[in-house]
Amino acid sequence: MPDSWATSGLDLHLEAAGPGLRRGLTDALREAVRTGRLAPGTRLPSSRGLAADLGIARNTVADAYADLVAEGWLTARQGSGTRVATRAAAPPSRRPAPGGPPARREPARPAHDLRPGTPDLASFPRAEWLRAARRALAAAPHHALGYGDPRGRAELRTALAGYLSRARGVRADPGHVLVCGGFSHGLKILGAVLRARGVRTVAVESYGLDVHRDLLAAAGLRTEPLPFDALGTDPAALRNADAVLLTPAHQFPMGVPLHPDRRAAVVDWARRTGGVVLEDDYDGEFRYDRQPVGALQGLGPDHVVYLGTASKSLAPGLRLAWAVLPPGLAEEATAAKGSTDTCGTLDQLTLAEFLTSGGYDRHVRAVRMRYRRRRDALVTAVAARAPEVRVTGIAAGLHAVLRLPPGTERSVVQAAAWQGLALNGLAFFRHPAARTDPLDALVIGYATPPDHAWSGALEALCAVLP
Amino acid sequence: MPDSWATSGLDLHLEAAGPGLRRGLTDALREAVRTGRLAPGTRLPSSRGLAADLGIARNTVADAYADLVAEGWLTARQGSGTRVATRAAAPPSRRPAPGGPPARREPARPAHDLRPGTPDLASFPRAEWLRAARRALAAAPHHALGYGDPRGRAELRTALAGYLSRARGVRADPGHVLVCGGFSHGLKILGAVLRARGVRTVAVESYGLDVHRDLLAAAGLRTEPLPFDALGTDPAALRNADAVLLTPAHQFPMGVPLHPDRRAAVVDWARRTGGVVLEDDYDGEFRYDRQPVGALQGLGPDHVVYLGTASKSLAPGLRLAWAVLPPGLAEEATAAKGSTDTCGTLDQLTLAEFLTSGGYDRHVRAVRMRYRRRRDALVTAVAARAPEVRVTGIAAGLHAVLRLPPGTERSVVQAAAWQGLALNGLAFFRHPAARTDPLDALVIGYATPPDHAWSGALEALCAVLP
Repeated sequence: MPDSWATSGLDLHLEAAGPGLRRGLTDALREAVRTGRLAPGTRLPSSRGLAADLGIARNTVADAYADLVAEGWLTARQGSGTRVATRAAAPPSRRPAPGGPPARREPARPAHDLRPGTPDLASFPRAEWLRAARRALAAAPHHALGYGDPRGRAELRTALAGYLSRARGVRADPGHVLVCGGFSHGLKILGAVLRARGVRTVAVESYGLDVHRDLLAAAGLRTEPLPFDALGTDPAALRNADAVLLTPAHQFPMGVPLHPDRRAAVVDWARRTGGVVLEDDYDGEFRYDRQPVGALQGLGPDHVVYLGTASKSLAPGLRLAWAVLPPGLAEEATAAKGSTDTCGTLDQLTLAEFLTSGGYDRHVRAVRMRYRRRRDALVTAVAARAPEVRVTGIAAGLHAVLRLPPGTERSVVQAAAWQGLALNGLAFFRHPAARTDPLDALVIGYATPPDHAWSGALEALCAVLP
Repeated sequence: MPDSWATSGLDLHLEAAGPGLRRGLTDALREAVRTGRLAPGTRLPSSRGLAADLGIARNTVADAYADLVAEGWLTARQGSGTRVATRAAAPPSRRPAPGGPPARREPARPAHDLRPGTPDLASFPRAEWLRAARRALAAAPHHALGYGDPRGRAELRTALAGYLSRARGVRADPGHVLVCGGFSHGLKILGAVLRARGVRTVAVESYGLDVHRDLLAAAGLRTEPLPFDALGTDPAALRNADAVLLTPAHQFPMGVPLHPDRRAAVVDWARRTGGVVLEDDYDGEFRYDRQPVGALQGLGPDHVVYLGTASKSLAPGLRLAWAVLPPGLAEEATAAKGSTDTCGTLDQLTLAEFLTSGGYDRHVRAVRMRYRRRRDALVTAVAARAPEVRVTGIAAGLHAVLRLPPGTERSVVQAAAWQGLALNGLAFFRHPAARTDPLDALVIGYATPPDHAWSGALEALCAVLP
């Protein structure tokens, strides 16, 4: 306990010496384990260290430890020291707050999960990531571990600028890159910047994520849905908006790219009116039939905020995303982010190394092949098993849209839930004020299951299709 | 470029075949390097991969690469592939925004830095941290890499509850621990929670950090300084406040613990009035003369929010801190944090492993010995070289207060700046509304310099003392 065992934390009531001392120590430790104050798995200090700290003989401590090992409260293993036994887990020592909210529980995981938004987490390149972390940490100067630049580490901003330029045609100056803790964090920052500039209305797509609309609403911004037709989102109605949030490369969730004429129209609108375009390029790395369409930002770098993320290409748990800002917005966005909301340095340095060493490209190539095979299997299975259902959208990304016979979406989603298959109908993504005719469809995240669960999930899906 | 080289990013204008093809490719790549679209250090795809993607002969690509290596634009090394040469760095391709703000520059680092707030970053246990990361990642289930619990990973909350219980006497249920991206992030969350509850005034100490006062002000909270006397902060004036922010174990920056009678008075006040105590335990691990005083939270777990951080014990760059919340505040604080502000999973899992394996204790023990020696050297040097200056405060933490002869603080700080020695006078930390008589003193962060720079910094300090 010389380091971190406050006496107050253990309620040690020790006799001066003799057998009372050993018993007192044993009782105090046992009580600490019983009540959970020493958590299961905790490693205890060495008997020598604890004895020196308490000013008692080492044998007394060793005897107390031995007693508690014998009683099953502690475990002693060669090389691992003395630890609190894991089966000694006690009920929480805190009484529940009277009338307080119930304890939060992990939601039960469904048997099969085909909801979109998460890549195959089993494919995260753990070994390569750790190797990149080792190289990055070996190369980092000491001051990199201090309080950092609110924009993010220069190494990562430079690596991202290079990567986004060659991979997505983004015109990026590292000084205008802002590293964020996920796309939502970036959207929250930009919502605050737009609101402070006097923006009141942000146009959004008729179909999209409610959490994004909620973030804009929390910033005091009204969202106004743009119509959606056979050519994708129609920007003609932009005249009523001060800003627009779009998924140009691969509309989420409808799965189509923004038509070339409409890409140009959006950039023209921004140039003409000074409007701001937020480009959500969430899965731009994943196109299976041709080169990906370059980012809209390349057409209008002074008007488009490019937003990308590691959540689809690597894993959401990294909490790393990036915004490439027009020069006129960079200072405001950096100030709005502030110094409290920075991301961990080590992951930033690791991602920078992963990008510049080619590890990121190799990983994207590997999972792209895997997702492409899954999409092909989905298309084949649906054609064979449910001829009334049509897979729409381009061969890209981590999700596909399955158009259903009119009037069947709700019952299919319900039937799936009964079978333990989690999926989202298209209605889940519809803006409440959308005027586009509702379509019946499923949005299938074919990247979500790990490999071993994929064929079972596909089978479960086919079983509930009309 | 099969993976991530959008054609649009390179402006490839290629002839159908023959020498024009090779020249076109060479020109396009050279231009991309020259303008910075391919960043220095970027690894190019293999000649086979690029050739397959462009549908041209591999030799054509290999020849183009060889030309550019010969010209110095690219480098080719065994095992490292073909990369953009680092000396090929181009001026940024973006024109500066007319009338826009100047580019942000890294502030120049002073020759010696004795400002408080940062531990010795050279002592960060890089190898041990990486080993813990490897073990943590090997043990993590795949779903740990997905979107997570806004409170933070359960592994870390459990490890922190155990550690804080034994080391700091904190009564912690893992369900009421909130992992934050630094103390400031936690304070921002709690400021929002208090404001939403109708709190208008938060009592603070007469001396403290302006960034903390600013965060509370940004949440719409007025800060009211408590008097400071020989017994430390006086909580008698708490009757005017709804909440209080304190550093009970080691007042920052004055360096004294809160007197036992006053500890009790604070908790009594909170019990009586329902007031909330925010306990900033920023350096509770570092006490050199005795066992650390346990956390105030242990006396009143239903009224005290305990806030700890890895910024002093490990490194600020980790952006990891934690709040232990009273049951009545836990749900509100978790909701205020929201799902956009989560911290990276890998660092959370690594810190959990570092805590439960004993690595954290070993590191704290090692740096504690080092900081203790530095503090001793400071006390000895000041006594020998500047007998009019008195080192005050307990033997603890990462900083000491040097009381100066009245009226000399400003000139000493100014003289230090001229010598390239960065330090803070006590005035820097004074609440603008503090009614306590001003004292002349320096707040010396003796942990800040790396080992090799410490004796030089101490010498520079002694040279400017009166």
